[in-house]
Amino acid sequence: MNVAVIGANGGIGRELVPRLTNAGHDPIGIVRDESQFDAVRERGGEPRLGDLEGEFTPALEGVDAVVFTAGSGGDSGWDKTLLVDLWGARRAIKASVERGIDRFVMISAYTASDPLAEPEALRPYRVAKRCADDYLERSPLDATVLRPTSLTDEEGTGHVSAAFEYRDENGDEIPRADVAQTVVACLANDETIGETVRLFGGDTPIENAISHG
Amino acid sequence: MNVAVIGANGGIGRELVPRLTNAGHDPIGIVRDESQFDAVRERGGEPRLGDLEGEFTPALEGVDAVVFTAGSGGDSGWDKTLLVDLWGARRAIKASVERGIDRFVMISAYTASDPLAEPEALRPYRVAKRCADDYLERSPLDATVLRPTSLTDEEGTGHVSAAFEYRDENGDEIPRADVAQTVVACLANDETIGETVRLFGGDTPIENAISHG
Repeated sequence: MNVAVIGANGGIGRELVPRLTNAGHDPIGIVRDESQFDAVRERGGEPRLGDLEGEFTPALEGVDAVVFTAGSGGDSGWDKTLLVDLWGARRAIKASVERGIDRFVMISAYTASDPLAEPEALRPYRVAKRCADDYLERSPLDATVLRPTSLTDEEGTGHVSAAFEYRDENGDEIPRADVAQTVVACLANDETIGETVRLFGGDTPIENAISHG
Repeated sequence: MNVAVIGANGGIGRELVPRLTNAGHDPIGIVRDESQFDAVRERGGEPRLGDLEGEFTPALEGVDAVVFTAGSGGDSGWDKTLLVDLWGARRAIKASVERGIDRFVMISAYTASDPLAEPEALRPYRVAKRCADDYLERSPLDATVLRPTSLTDEEGTGHVSAAFEYRDENGDEIPRADVAQTVVACLANDETIGETVRLFGGDTPIENAISHG
């Protein structure tokens, strides 16, 4: 499949692009600046420009599946959280619907389940992620929402713990590499369509962990 | 009806409470601080505490209809836009559904129709309002969304211009008093259920202006 990765140069995006190639897909790395093109190419992706606050839809030409892993980042303001994490995600979902792209995988956040949970500092971020997730879940797309717990840059283990129901705990942290590998596994497993899956570090091989939907 | 006004001490809320009484309703003014109770009472409302970021649901006890006109205000940060204008609105909608309250009138903003329109400074606010509106429209409530253009504190005229379709113009400013009177008229007119109505200053008596649904 031609898989568009929105946020291809982010922490999870960088792990995801080469794994898509390894799985036989053709990754398209959508980034907001041409200066990021070489980084996408080095990982085996076809770089394309897409601005979640501007012209975006043309970047989805010929795409079969979309992975949304863009984020405004911790250093930008809450205005960007509204414009990128929430509205940018909605624009990507809407553009996918309009282009007839069926498959969409959203990288969300564990506590999007409960935006007013502690710590308070993360509440606005969770509201944005939750509202984007809800918009996707109500769309006609074949959607999977992944809600990983705290992310690390540790090496991937190929193992995770997945929960299809809410658990009142954050669980173990999870390497970004394992989140990326879980995306690849979801694209290969239609059981994950329509599911919202919480991801923790764990001991179950990824392909098995996501097969309980 | 017992009509709860969320944000009863705001610019539109203050105009709305006495108009509800005049129309034969019993207004309940929901505010976030007891220091605002006297101001609600002076206008003929029954004050109740409700914190859109904390305990809120009990404030809706015995309520027949809800008007949401709360806002985080221009002086607070975009984090509060996410927490109050968006998540607070969603919480109010969800609480209304859970309590079996059918009728809900949302005070939105004209350009929520097109969040990325100019001026750029308002974009994050419009995203929050639009996402709250969409959540309401997709809820099972008997909802009316009012999207007034720029608000003034001029005296009410009893006349507005209402548009049920998007027009690519902001149109004339509108006094908050006329927005409040339009809320009262919507509560009396079931034709407005399921409608999203753009409001401008204008020449049509309010009751007539909203009867084109």
